[in-house]
Amino acid sequence: MNKSLAWWEGLSASSTVLRFVDRLLRGIGQVMFQDNPLSGLLFFIAIAWGSWAGGAPQVAIGGLLALVAGTLTAQWLRVDTAGLNAGLYGFNAYLTGLALPTFMAATPQLWVYVVLGGAVSVVFMLALVRVFSTWSVSVLTAPFVLISWLLLLATNAFAGLEGSALPPVGVIVPIDAAAANPLQLGDFLQGLVTSISQVFLKGNGLAALLLLAGLAVSSLPAAVFALLGAVVGLITAHALGAESQLITAGLLGFNPVLTAIALGAVFYRPSPRVVIYTLVATVLSVIVQGAMIALMTPFGIPTLTAAFVLVTWLFLLPALKFEQS
Amino acid sequence: MNKSLAWWEGLSASSTVLRFVDRLLRGIGQVMFQDNPLSGLLFFIAIAWGSWAGGAPQVAIGGLLALVAGTLTAQWLRVDTAGLNAGLYGFNAYLTGLALPTFMAATPQLWVYVVLGGAVSVVFMLALVRVFSTWSVSVLTAPFVLISWLLLLATNAFAGLEGSALPPVGVIVPIDAAAANPLQLGDFLQGLVTSISQVFLKGNGLAALLLLAGLAVSSLPAAVFALLGAVVGLITAHALGAESQLITAGLLGFNPVLTAIALGAVFYRPSPRVVIYTLVATVLSVIVQGAMIALMTPFGIPTLTAAFVLVTWLFLLPALKFEQS
Amino acid sequence: MNKSLAWWEGLSASSTVLRFVDRLLRGIGQVMFQDNPLSGLLFFIAIAWGSWAGGAPQVAIGGLLALVAGTLTAQWLRVDTAGLNAGLYGFNAYLTGLALPTFMAATPQLWVYVVLGGAVSVVFMLALVRVFSTWSVSVLTAPFVLISWLLLLATNAFAGLEGSALPPVGVIVPIDAAAANPLQLGDFLQGLVTSISQVFLKGNGLAALLLLAGLAVSSLPAAVFALLGAVVGLITAHALGAESQLITAGLLGFNPVLTAIALGAVFYRPSPRVVIYTLVATVLSVIVQGAMIALMTPFGIPTLTAAFVLVTWLFLLPALKFEQS
Repeated sequence: MNKSLAWWEGLSASSTVLRFVDRLLRGIGQVMFQDNPLSGLLFFIAIAWGSWAGGAPQVAIGGLLALVAGTLTAQWLRVDTAGLNAGLYGFNAYLTGLALPTFMAATPQLWVYVVLGGAVSVVFMLALVRVFSTWSVSVLTAPFVLISWLLLLATNAFAGLEGSALPPVGVIVPIDAAAANPLQLGDFLQGLVTSISQVFLKGNGLAALLLLAGLAVSSLPAAVFALLGAVVGLITAHALGAESQLITAGLLGFNPVLTAIALGAVFYRPSPRVVIYTLVATVLSVIVQGAMIALMTPFGIPTLTAAFVLVTWLFLLPALKFEQS
Repeated sequence: MNKSLAWWEGLSASSTVLRFVDRLLRGIGQVMFQDNPLSGLLFFIAIAWGSWAGGAPQVAIGGLLALVAGTLTAQWLRVDTAGLNAGLYGFNAYLTGLALPTFMAATPQLWVYVVLGGAVSVVFMLALVRVFSTWSVSVLTAPFVLISWLLLLATNAFAGLEGSALPPVGVIVPIDAAAANPLQLGDFLQGLVTSISQVFLKGNGLAALLLLAGLAVSSLPAAVFALLGAVVGLITAHALGAESQLITAGLLGFNPVLTAIALGAVFYRPSPRVVIYTLVATVLSVIVQGAMIALMTPFGIPTLTAAFVLVTWLFLLPALKFEQS
Repeated sequence: MNKSLAWWEGLSASSTVLRFVDRLLRGIGQVMFQDNPLSGLLFFIAIAWGSWAGGAPQVAIGGLLALVAGTLTAQWLRVDTAGLNAGLYGFNAYLTGLALPTFMAATPQLWVYVVLGGAVSVVFMLALVRVFSTWSVSVLTAPFVLISWLLLLATNAFAGLEGSALPPVGVIVPIDAAAANPLQLGDFLQGLVTSISQVFLKGNGLAALLLLAGLAVSSLPAAVFALLGAVVGLITAHALGAESQLITAGLLGFNPVLTAIALGAVFYRPSPRVVIYTLVATVLSVIVQGAMIALMTPFGIPTLTAAFVLVTWLFLLPALKFEQS
């Protein structure tokens, strides 16, 4: 594996076009923290497949378009080359490009919106990095959440932008206990895989396996913590009495998956104490996702990865030294 | 008084159990900024009494449980010993443990929630301290407000969690002038004491006197500013035409009480100019509490001490040098 | 022009009263970033005229009252003299004093509110300057937005405060396509001038010309970017299908006007790359204004200059070096 990557890295260094492709792939890989073009490629295939199989090819196209727009913008803004080569200016653009066609109708204006969203996500990234560098904390997918919320909210004000697949604007209504049916094993397994694929806004089994493979080729711990996050997320959600349909669709699972990868395998070094700390944060991510669903109800916008971002920030900011024992 | 405290401090230093009890008591004392175990004890008795007399013993039990969970979490996370011994990792946990049973039904899941809330409040404390140390400003009760809001909002998403005593979700409706009846002297006095006891989420006269006593044994200026905050808060609320029932229940008074103590007796040294500055902030706390009530209406969650936190932050951040004349 | 300014500066230096008047005028000028008493005077006449012509003299009076209250407060708090002399403690007070009588009924309590708002805007200014100085970014009109939102939200809680001209509290309803009529040239020109005058919360043609004159006497690029911002704002809003009435009233134009001045003529030095960067931010300001309208709908408060503040912050924070080519 390392040999192939070294060969590819050599190729990329010798060609502007391949370097650009490498940046795109790493940008996709960074959605789950992997600075690895092969991870990015597998993630890309997963999304393309999930998008095609779900009858919504515009989602995969939107992702690619925004990713290209974002990467070109980053180059035009002359950001730091190291970050650019690591795909750090791509993942928010890619997610924004997936989110907009997921929640909006495919009008001509959508594509202008996708390009604008991808480009502006880079500015937001630079802005938030500047703020959070004060505390040496990563901005995670906050730029994606912020730009997508703003762009989706604005669809209400402009007749040319149709947020036709947005959650309905409404009054918060506590869940009815009857909606929390006992989960069969099949439902549980379905929830497990969709929790992972929903990181990229898709509920698709094969896509989930490709995503896990993409994680594993780059970092086995990341793949393990992703699975662990999905399992803990599902159990927590079910134990607290969440709506069964939300669980099987993976909509309560993608935030805990991301939190578990981030805290367990990326920002802290795995150890028994880190695992406990990560577990608490993973459980909390499910609860905060529930809170976010309520919080967004009056505005009719999706929660995206806000729960992951908020919980992970709060668990990273203490800057605990777990290595010392 | 100082002699007894010295004797107790000696005892605490010699015993792990007593040191732990001392941390708990100081944690309770810090709700009103008092690093003093006797204040904490009097506050604890006040809350226990108010909770028992109000037919809601689960509130006092929840507070204690969350306080123990929070203090143990702080120890497990190896936070700084000085802060731990001063009770700085206890007051947010204690308030969270009071708030959850106040607004939720006493199901088995509530108790898991209380322990989780107490534990996580410490992580939020560490996170916010890291952020606000950039400007040398205290985080006040922000960790409590944040974790409680998230946990209470989430009750809407999970059938196992019943936020049965939460404010109703609704549309903001401006107050009807008829609800702002002239206050009789009795109502005024009742509002005065409940404003103080509502700092701990209780409207109880005897509890209020015990709380004032707890303040006075540690800091006479704190007790004076607490009373002053309650008086100014009441007069402002009534003059602006607030709902009389909110006033007598103390629900417009606990934020100004905390603001007055914080600015007048804790973070600035009392002087004529500081008193004027504190008075303006106290008046503003009433108005911001009114704003918070409106802001929270679509979400059906209580405002807690958010008005105090926001106003006190904004009046501390300028870092004015009032001593220089 | 420079000679007259020098003569006036000499006069101001020799008289406490004239220095105070100079501070007031520069405070008004700073609403559009001009540290220039002549700009302030022209802006003041524009607002006085717009206010009088619109049958709402209380708006102009409120602005002046809050400006005096704010400037006196800043002096009492002994803020830095350079900032005081540049009018930096006046513009938020002035805007607050214009906003409160615009959205509230002229009761006696309103005037207390205006004075309080003007005074507290200075504290908020000092607080936010402290926070944002960490990243060397201007606070723009954020203190005005924050204090005005709080004061206006609070009108719901107090019978003595009547927010009678506030937007209705409601459920977000996507705009009906029929409301986005094709704009006639006359509508377009009307939108152009009102977009500029709405910076001061007024839709008035003569006022807009006076405001442009006030900009031009101090900075020709500022006047050019103001016009450019209005044009780009209008075209964007119309192309996306905004409600025609919002466009002609200038309600979708004042944020892009401010963004264009700030990025194009104040914080970056004009260059082709800066113009492109400013154009993207200007377009985004229109969209974010649409998002803000939706976001504020459940709370029934106006968006004020929040869209300008948010977008300009996000485009300033990257601290890009456009000069290097």
